[in-house]
Order: sequence, then structure tokens, then C-alpha cells
Amino acid sequence: MLRDVLKAVCDAGVNNVTLICTAPTNLDFEGLNMKICIVFDERSLNDVLNDVLRHEAGPLLIIMSDLPLLTARNVREILSYEEDVVVVPGRKGGTNILFLRKPQQFSVDYYGVSFLDHVSIARRQGLSVATYDSFLASTDVDEVDDLIELLIHGANKEAARFLKRIGVELDVNKEVRLRRR
Amino acid sequence: MLRDVLKAVCDAGVNNVTLICTAPTNLDFEGLNMKICIVFDERSLNDVLNDVLRHEAGPLLIIMSDLPLLTARNVREILSYEEDVVVVPGRKGGTNILFLRKPQQFSVDYYGVSFLDHVSIARRQGLSVATYDSFLASTDVDEVDDLIELLIHGANKEAARFLKRIGVELDVNKEVRLRRR
Repeated sequence: MLRDVLKAVCDAGVNNVTLICTAPTNLDFEGLNMKICIVFDERSLNDVLNDVLRHEAGPLLIIMSDLPLLTARNVREILSYEEDVVVVPGRKGGTNILFLRKPQQFSVDYYGVSFLDHVSIARRQGLSVATYDSFLASTDVDEVDDLIELLIHGANKEAARFLKRIGVELDVNKEVRLRRR
Repeated sequence: MLRDVLKAVCDAGVNNVTLICTAPTNLDFEGLNMKICIVFDERSLNDVLNDVLRHEAGPLLIIMSDLPLLTARNVREILSYEEDVVVVPGRKGGTNILFLRKPQQFSVDYYGVSFLDHVSIARRQGLSVATYDSFLASTDVDEVDDLIELLIHGANKEAARFLKRIGVELDVNKEVRLRRR
């Protein structure tokens, strides 16, 4: 999944990425032509990111790693907005991606209805806000059923190929479900 | 919900609509400045629509009625594609909207993974296909939790105002749920 996200970012021309992980990890970055800096940090997502924001002068794109359907086109479109803050909603009020032109004037709040919180924080700070409307970028993988979207819309994605390799496939009757061979 | 869909369509400049209903209905069209023709038909969705397609020469936009977050911008963007077929996916493989430039060369198949089926049908007929990527247009209201999206992203929608009027609101703890006062 993370490789799919990195590939979308790389194909969009972004080639300088910092990965924030809560545990040491053994990732395979073969074929990804980009500079990847890995940071281990056990603090909560909000604490880590707000620390980053305080020290970051330039525009900053924050992407969750569980967005395997994200495309390079999505990334390019998000980066093309002129607003100070671009919020990409996930389901149930989540924030899947944030693009911040003035990171030092913003702070993140990723729990609860973070989409509404991020819009409020931006407005309170006098920052202009845009919402980026995308089904692909809104699809984060939290629950088993989210993998249905990956199998339907992500034929060319590594995460979908992995699922197929371990025997997970669509079970189409009246409703669409997953089954494992 | 249907009024929200009609408003988006009307604001996008489409003002000639046919509503297909399976039962007689008492709808309030006040404030919708468009020509609305109502057809009652008890056949299945596929049978009714394929009958329409056979007799329709011009471009045809088919929209499900449970898309309260749909915007005029979505409708305008869908109509701007040059491809023969535009498919707007819903969750779990559904098709929320179809735009057909050559309806007589297409047929619908709304059960199962209709998104993939519609792409296949178009290709088999030699028609060019585009997928329209939108979180708002992908949000159909099938399950209780889908109303969460309506309350978060549809503040200006009639369906959200109705929910609030009957006391349905967000219940935000670690997870986002619905509750009724």
C-alpha cells in the first residue's frame, strides 16, 4: 500500500519524501526513483506532525500511507491549488491528505471529525481553504470491506496484486463481498 | 435527497429531467426551475433503463436519486467529457451516474459489480470510456453510516437539514457515529 502511495507521489514529480513510522520497519523501495528519509517516532500522529509543522517553512504535503488508489493525477491536482490549505476528506470525517502552503501557521488534529476540524483550524488562522473531491483519494483502508475498492479500482496497484497472490478475491452475489480461496 | 440531486442538476444548466419511480409518489418540486416528467414503472431498473436507451438518440445522463452530496460542479464536469461513456463509481462496485453520448449503443447492468460491468459493456461495443473521480458523487446513501457523510459534507443540503430537524446528529468519540436526540 505504501509503495502505491509513493509511486503516485513520485510519478507526480515529487521526489523528496519523509516517511514517519511508529516502529522500525523493513521496506522495499526498489524502483522508486526518489529520495526517501525515514523517521521513527513513537509519539502520536498529532504530536509528531505538529512538531514538523513548526519547523517547516516551505509547502508541505501530508499523506496517509493507506491510500493505495491514489494516483499521480490526484497528487498533481492537489499541488495545483492556490489556497493556503487543501483538505482531502476520507470517509467518516477523516482527513486523508493535507497540503499546506504555510505549515507554520497551521496545526493538525487527526482525531474525531478531523476534516471539519482542519477546515476550522485553517479559518481560525485566516488561511484560505479548498476541499479536493476524489473517490480514489478518499478511499483509505481501515476495514476489511475497504479492500473491495482496492480490488475493483486498483487493478494496476501493488497492494491489489498482493491480495490476489494470497487468494483474496471478490465474491459477487447480490452484494459484493470478499472471500479467500 | 432527490431534491438535492435535482438542484445540482438544475444549477448545472440541465433543465429537462425524467424521474423514473417504481411507485406513485408525492414530491414537492417547489423552487426547482426545470421541466420534470415523472414516469411510473414497476419493472426492474435494468429493464426500464434499457428500454429508455433503445429509444433515446441524444446524450443521456442517468443519475441515481440517493446522491445528496452531488454538486452542480460535478454535473458540469461529467457533461464536459468527450468520451462516449462516463462512469461515476459508487462504493462497493456500484455505478452512481452514467453519461452516455450514444445511448442506443449501450445497455445497463446495475447488479453485481456494475462499475466493472459498465466499463466492459462500453469496451465490447467499441465505445470510449472515462471514469469520473469524485468523493461527493460516489457517496450514495444505502446504509445508516452513509448519513455520516451527509452530515459532515452536506451542511447546505436539504437532506442534511431534514436529518437535523428530526434530531439526528453526529456522535463524535474516538469513532464517528450517529445518534438521535
